[in-house]
Amino acid sequence: MTQSGRPQRIGAVKQITSHSNPIVKEIKGLVAQRKHRSQSGLFVAEGLKLANDALAAGWGVRYLALGPEARDNPAAQKAAATAKARGALILEASTAVMSAMTRKDNPQTVVGVYEQNLLGAQDIDPEIATLWVALDRVRDPGNLGTIIRTVDAVGGTGVMLVGDCTDPFAVEAVRATMGSLFHVPLARMSKDEFKALARRWPGTVTATHLKGSVDYRAPDYQEPVLLVMGNEQKGLEDDMAEACSTLIRIPQAGQADSLNLAVATGVALYEIRRKHLEL
Amino acid sequence: MTQSGRPQRIGAVKQITSHSNPIVKEIKGLVAQRKHRSQSGLFVAEGLKLANDALAAGWGVRYLALGPEARDNPAAQKAAATAKARGALILEASTAVMSAMTRKDNPQTVVGVYEQNLLGAQDIDPEIATLWVALDRVRDPGNLGTIIRTVDAVGGTGVMLVGDCTDPFAVEAVRATMGSLFHVPLARMSKDEFKALARRWPGTVTATHLKGSVDYRAPDYQEPVLLVMGNEQKGLEDDMAEACSTLIRIPQAGQADSLNLAVATGVALYEIRRKHLEL
Repeated sequence: MTQSGRPQRIGAVKQITSHSNPIVKEIKGLVAQRKHRSQSGLFVAEGLKLANDALAAGWGVRYLALGPEARDNPAAQKAAATAKARGALILEASTAVMSAMTRKDNPQTVVGVYEQNLLGAQDIDPEIATLWVALDRVRDPGNLGTIIRTVDAVGGTGVMLVGDCTDPFAVEAVRATMGSLFHVPLARMSKDEFKALARRWPGTVTATHLKGSVDYRAPDYQEPVLLVMGNEQKGLEDDMAEACSTLIRIPQAGQADSLNLAVATGVALYEIRRKHLEL
Repeated sequence: MTQSGRPQRIGAVKQITSHSNPIVKEIKGLVAQRKHRSQSGLFVAEGLKLANDALAAGWGVRYLALGPEARDNPAAQKAAATAKARGALILEASTAVMSAMTRKDNPQTVVGVYEQNLLGAQDIDPEIATLWVALDRVRDPGNLGTIIRTVDAVGGTGVMLVGDCTDPFAVEAVRATMGSLFHVPLARMSKDEFKALARRWPGTVTATHLKGSVDYRAPDYQEPVLLVMGNEQKGLEDDMAEACSTLIRIPQAGQADSLNLAVATGVALYEIRRKHLEL
């Protein structure tokens, strides 16, 4: 999905010492701006763990930048060799350049640039799914990344981003997935596409909703389950709620108005998958 | 707990137009640095909702800063009148000054400075508790704030901060509590104080732990419950785990290594309080 027409030495190693190197500028742009990520179809993920997750999952890797510590680290060298064999350009950079690229005082010693993967509504086959989570206009990248991580942990199938959501390929979101971004398929779709999908969904379509009168522990969730979660501030839009067969609520005591979105999703997911999860 | 010796007009209204006003500098310091918060015993919470939560809960309020929009807002004026009657200094500031104080491009129209409240181990009476959560060296302010919010939501009693934890009065942590900071007692203690408290704890003392062999749904949790959660990266220290009567584990499928700390705490809390929570 990369669209840059600039010539690159692919599958090679390049030393970078200058902050004004065009690749450094490109990576800074990918870290800082959604526009750059959307136009290039690329994104940045920090750390050796995520590089190994990406490589093991077969994701397209464009660059792998190594700081000085990575040059003596056998695991980092192995990741670099794998990435190079897959056509990535390996960048050897100073700590100052790594820091400039990622806008962090203490940069990770491995930073990768990967190709985005986003499905559309037409790519989703409910017949081979256990559980999808659909997020309606999720705003916070930390919440989105944490939900992707939790869907992975409960053995869910994927996450749908409905309407105007925060970018799953923003550095903060990627970081919060802790590598699950590379394991959990993501799909982006309009509200109309979602509603059409929900209407033909064969299993339980449920949402947590303030108007929900059903305790979240009560339903007999039928697979494939589609769990719909609303926006952090505004909750779920009425027409999205109408697309669901069951509106559930998580009971609360105390004086809190609501749960954090990622926590509410986690509590609901562990209940939905209760029969399937064991030590 | 405020320790500043500077004379202030208390219970008054003050117009602020200059960025170099000493109170503006003081608030900037409270936002930016833990050192300033610790030395003064004060902290900053943004927004009218949190101001109302703080005032309703009877927290000490030192300043309430109002941006231009708050001057025509009856709810903000009511909060200001209450704060003034409690001895707070009301600051009327421009949007630019509000922005400078909070280091945000789009500042809230009400920003409060409140007195910190932190209990010690000796203040905790297990006999009048339902559930405390103890956090071992929690690092992320968003996780800490979210956990405080969840403890409120399940009707828990309070949160213990054990050892070197992130500051619960940092702006990010306060924001993540969504006002529950003013409802949920917090206590800070050393590891030794915690272990002594755990030894004399009358109910179930449990921790989620990678070595846990008990499914989190299995124990018959006896109130008061003490749930212990470890650090985001390193988990729970061995001697902390030894202070617990039961080590539980939350099962996982998929390829995720672990759950986010706030999500894991939420899932455990909803299980522990399962019998007590209903719609």
